[in-house]
Amino acid sequence: MSYEQSHLYRLRHSAAHLMAQAITELFPGVKLAIGPPIENGFYYDVDPPKPIKEEDLEKIEKRMRELSNLKQPIVRLEAKDRDEAKEIILSECTLGQGEDTALYKLQLLEAVPAGEAVSFYDQKATDKQGQERRFIDLCRGPHVENTSEIKHFKLMSLAGAYWRGDVKNKQLTRIYGTAFETKEDLELYLHNLEEAKKRDHRLLGRELGLFMFSAKVGPGLPLWLPKGTVLREVLSDFLKQQQLERGYDGVVTPNIASIRLYEKSGHVQTYRDKMFPFMEDEEKETFILKPMNCPFHIEIYASQMHSYRDLPIRLAEFGTVYRYEQSGELAGMLRVRGFTQDDAHLFVRPDQLLEEFKGVVDLMMVVLKKLGLTEYRVRVGTRDPSSDKYVGHDENWQLSEAAIIQACQELGLEFEVSPGDAAFYGPKLDLIIKDALGREWQMGTVQVDYNLPERFELEYIGEDSKPHRPIMIHRAPFGSLERMIGLLTEQYAGAFPFWLSPVQVAILPIADRHVAYAERLATMLRGYSKPGWQPEGEGADATPPSLPFDGALRVHVDDRRETLGKKIRENQRMKIPIMLILGDNDIENGTVGIRSRETGDLGAKPLAEVFKMLEDLQGE
Amino acid sequence: MSYEQSHLYRLRHSAAHLMAQAITELFPGVKLAIGPPIENGFYYDVDPPKPIKEEDLEKIEKRMRELSNLKQPIVRLEAKDRDEAKEIILSECTLGQGEDTALYKLQLLEAVPAGEAVSFYDQKATDKQGQERRFIDLCRGPHVENTSEIKHFKLMSLAGAYWRGDVKNKQLTRIYGTAFETKEDLELYLHNLEEAKKRDHRLLGRELGLFMFSAKVGPGLPLWLPKGTVLREVLSDFLKQQQLERGYDGVVTPNIASIRLYEKSGHVQTYRDKMFPFMEDEEKETFILKPMNCPFHIEIYASQMHSYRDLPIRLAEFGTVYRYEQSGELAGMLRVRGFTQDDAHLFVRPDQLLEEFKGVVDLMMVVLKKLGLTEYRVRVGTRDPSSDKYVGHDENWQLSEAAIIQACQELGLEFEVSPGDAAFYGPKLDLIIKDALGREWQMGTVQVDYNLPERFELEYIGEDSKPHRPIMIHRAPFGSLERMIGLLTEQYAGAFPFWLSPVQVAILPIADRHVAYAERLATMLRGYSKPGWQPEGEGADATPPSLPFDGALRVHVDDRRETLGKKIRENQRMKIPIMLILGDNDIENGTVGIRSRETGDLGAKPLAEVFKMLEDLQGE
Repeated sequence: MSYEQSHLYRLRHSAAHLMAQAITELFPGVKLAIGPPIENGFYYDVDPPKPIKEEDLEKIEKRMRELSNLKQPIVRLEAKDRDEAKEIILSECTLGQGEDTALYKLQLLEAVPAGEAVSFYDQKATDKQGQERRFIDLCRGPHVENTSEIKHFKLMSLAGAYWRGDVKNKQLTRIYGTAFETKEDLELYLHNLEEAKKRDHRLLGRELGLFMFSAKVGPGLPLWLPKGTVLREVLSDFLKQQQLERGYDGVVTPNIASIRLYEKSGHVQTYRDKMFPFMEDEEKETFILKPMNCPFHIEIYASQMHSYRDLPIRLAEFGTVYRYEQSGELAGMLRVRGFTQDDAHLFVRPDQLLEEFKGVVDLMMVVLKKLGLTEYRVRVGTRDPSSDKYVGHDENWQLSEAAIIQACQELGLEFEVSPGDAAFYGPKLDLIIKDALGREWQMGTVQVDYNLPERFELEYIGEDSKPHRPIMIHRAPFGSLERMIGLLTEQYAGAFPFWLSPVQVAILPIADRHVAYAERLATMLRGYSKPGWQPEGEGADATPPSLPFDGALRVHVDDRRETLGKKIRENQRMKIPIMLILGDNDIENGTVGIRSRETGDLGAKPLAEVFKMLEDLQGE
Repeated sequence: MSYEQSHLYRLRHSAAHLMAQAITELFPGVKLAIGPPIENGFYYDVDPPKPIKEEDLEKIEKRMRELSNLKQPIVRLEAKDRDEAKEIILSECTLGQGEDTALYKLQLLEAVPAGEAVSFYDQKATDKQGQERRFIDLCRGPHVENTSEIKHFKLMSLAGAYWRGDVKNKQLTRIYGTAFETKEDLELYLHNLEEAKKRDHRLLGRELGLFMFSAKVGPGLPLWLPKGTVLREVLSDFLKQQQLERGYDGVVTPNIASIRLYEKSGHVQTYRDKMFPFMEDEEKETFILKPMNCPFHIEIYASQMHSYRDLPIRLAEFGTVYRYEQSGELAGMLRVRGFTQDDAHLFVRPDQLLEEFKGVVDLMMVVLKKLGLTEYRVRVGTRDPSSDKYVGHDENWQLSEAAIIQACQELGLEFEVSPGDAAFYGPKLDLIIKDALGREWQMGTVQVDYNLPERFELEYIGEDSKPHRPIMIHRAPFGSLERMIGLLTEQYAGAFPFWLSPVQVAILPIADRHVAYAERLATMLRGYSKPGWQPEGEGADATPPSLPFDGALRVHVDDRRETLGKKIRENQRMKIPIMLILGDNDIENGTVGIRSRETGDLGAKPLAEVFKMLEDLQGE
């Protein structure tokens, strides 16, 4: 059952009416426009005689609660004809507040298609004071049966909205609210909203020093700050190692190409509206900023002859591409204009398709597990059998759809098949991730492609010494570094797992005289010393026990002259996983105070124990 | 003394005359055009009655040798006036071969500016047969005194050349030759030419699978193949680690920016001819493909307030930039249109300039040493005191020039000071490398910059709580990955040092039954196994001694069904540093046959010994 058919949808629609009733009582003479349910609640656009302010929302909410308790039945009425409908609007809907309050409703009536029934929803009851309370609205419905069902609601915010969405019309006041069937649902929703606000990657990104935007560089073009650059590198290094072990070959290709490349690939013809303006000059070749890496990898494949024994060939690139998204569609790191895909293209023989597809999906599972993204669903997009938009031979489609499904089965994955969701050039598999707040994100995709090998006339020489056409698989487990880091920032609310944290360990010397020892400890944990650095001062000669592992930790020595309390708070705010606190006793006893981001102060521990703890964290 | 004033220059000019004399004898009726000395030799453009072919060069050379041995004195004559000059050309210079052979010389005479003396060079002698041999040419000179001085020469090649360089004129035959003062010089030159041909990075790049170009992508835009990508990554990883240890912070910035950024930096005004056409569209912001990274790093610096305690801030990026070089200027990897700079910008206080400059130069020395580029000279570019093109205060210039010179002195570097070689915005230091063939390459540069901090109004808050302007240092030790890899390929003729080799070890199983053991060995040396790989077949259960180091070697198992001889030759051609050859005896005895790229077959050795050898190589 769709949301539009659900009881919740009706409930929210009725909540909009209840809010309009309260506003009519509190702001007599208000002109009502429209009040529909929406994805997470409802709104009503109103034209009040005096401005409605943020602080009025509570008052309106209180009045709604009173009206809900009146247990008004909600009744549908149908007008015999247009004249009667107009009569009802002018007499009943205005509730005696003056005919001009019907301004927008009369225009809405005119827009009802001829021949369609015109309905009203009427709710009324007598209150304790014996006074009739009533609200009647031109409305298609449906609604719940009684206003008493509307118990768990909250008004959220105010915004401006033009009548009929047209800037030439009057700007109305839009009041947003939400309603749920149970108290728990409402509370969870409000809690998650709060959480989402705290996890907003745009705010955290700036606060934690991950990335920034600049007006002079332009919208949708992120600049990665030092800590965000570490995140990118740790993620890329992890995937590179996986790809190395799985027989991928790295390549690097330019960010631009002659228009000829994208004419050949067909992108100039079909993808132009997502491309940046071309680099054109009468006297020069026309160049295009690359929106996708595939044609470059194809040029590499095509640059030499291949035997069937050379396949599969797996070309991987962290390739930065540019797509001209409308500025209204840009959203932090989740939709940008320049992003780095963890792209790869596999050139395979038909008899290798199953194994290679399986290998790709297996890699994606390894990636998701490492990232702690363990809730996801798998959707297999197949052909719509009734459409003829698809390219490629029937037998290839059957082969590849069967291969994808078999791959999922052999890997023990639950999946849904979604006919009609294939690309025109081949079937695909999508991973939809559910994050810590239950929100779904479309992430990595694996696509089978028969089209580009055909357009570029790719070949390999088969065992029969004849030329054959390879199949291409496109895949990107992260999707892009930008989108994945945006998601991970929200998933972890900036408190990244130890292996991923830009700074893993902060060392906090209590006083200046502990700084030398702190640097010495940092040097051990990092596994390198800064050129020219010489330990000096107290503890400089002390010999901590040797490190039982490779080091290579990302360590920051916080040697600012601030109080320990302030330093701890700031490192906690920066979500550093481990703080090591050093004072006189520690240097004397070979201990260090340790604080974990998650569990707080763990007290002073012998260095050997701390080293073991760090080794375990690093191995996770 | 310049080349143009040298004896060698005169010698080569006379060699051109000697060649013309030989041609006149061998191809009677030939029309001579011009014959100057050039950088590495000389040429003569001639219009012969029948085509001169490659195989004629030997004949001409032989005749030149005979004429040289005649010991003809070379004598300068001066015509009294133009009429006499014309008379000499038509009577003497034609050598009785017909007046039309003077066609080009008469045109040259017309081009001699009025009032300038017209001179001829005349060489003649009587040969053993008693016949007079003579050659006289319209020529400004100077020449050597006798043709017998021209002993060590060689004719190199033929080319087409239009008379006066104009395609509308007749195409003449250009014959290139070279000449030296000693036999040793000639031989060294010819040897180096051969060497340079063998080391040509464009050929090696393709042959070794490093990089390629594609007509559809466009000229000057390299595509990095898998092995070249490994080179890039090994070089980048090495420098990244150095930079990490030296307190640099990595950043990543887009390849494009709004035109506003480059208007602010001044590049739109001063650098436009090197930029790709702008991305312009009436309805959109104009974007520019980035020609340099600096303005982005400045935006990052400027995005927050800095205290004097935060400085120096060192922002590093492997940033890919694009510059529109003319297509005639493109040269393999040495001049491209898209390249990745190992860029960094240091924002420093005036009192930090010396130390930071020293740190940068020290890093460059570490890099050159690691790359085996040990021959270089250092040039310090300072202001031309008589020019007023420089921006910035005098005291800053004095401070920074003194800092650079002091840095070089404290590091014990030999350097030359080159007044007038500074950029308009600050003094600089250039490193000029001499490669294995003695050729010089301008590589990394360090520049001090007062201009951009001024234009972008950069600030930090000083100890006096007042705003101060930081100084910027631009630096790139490699210059660019493209140029450095081009140079290294030529320097090592493709035989990269062990740590840099894309494939470090090739394992050659002699027969199919040795492949499983080879894979097992490869797995150990790599430090990882391919997912799902199971050892099978002979030797699969054998337990080689454990590896005494981390592994992480780049290992290729050459399991093709080819003869061992062919496999060895091909891996040698691919310049793999170490080959390990495996047969029945090796598996039984725990040995392996080892071949070094440099020293050839080293025979069968126990695995433990081979492991030790590899550990040593890796540690180098």
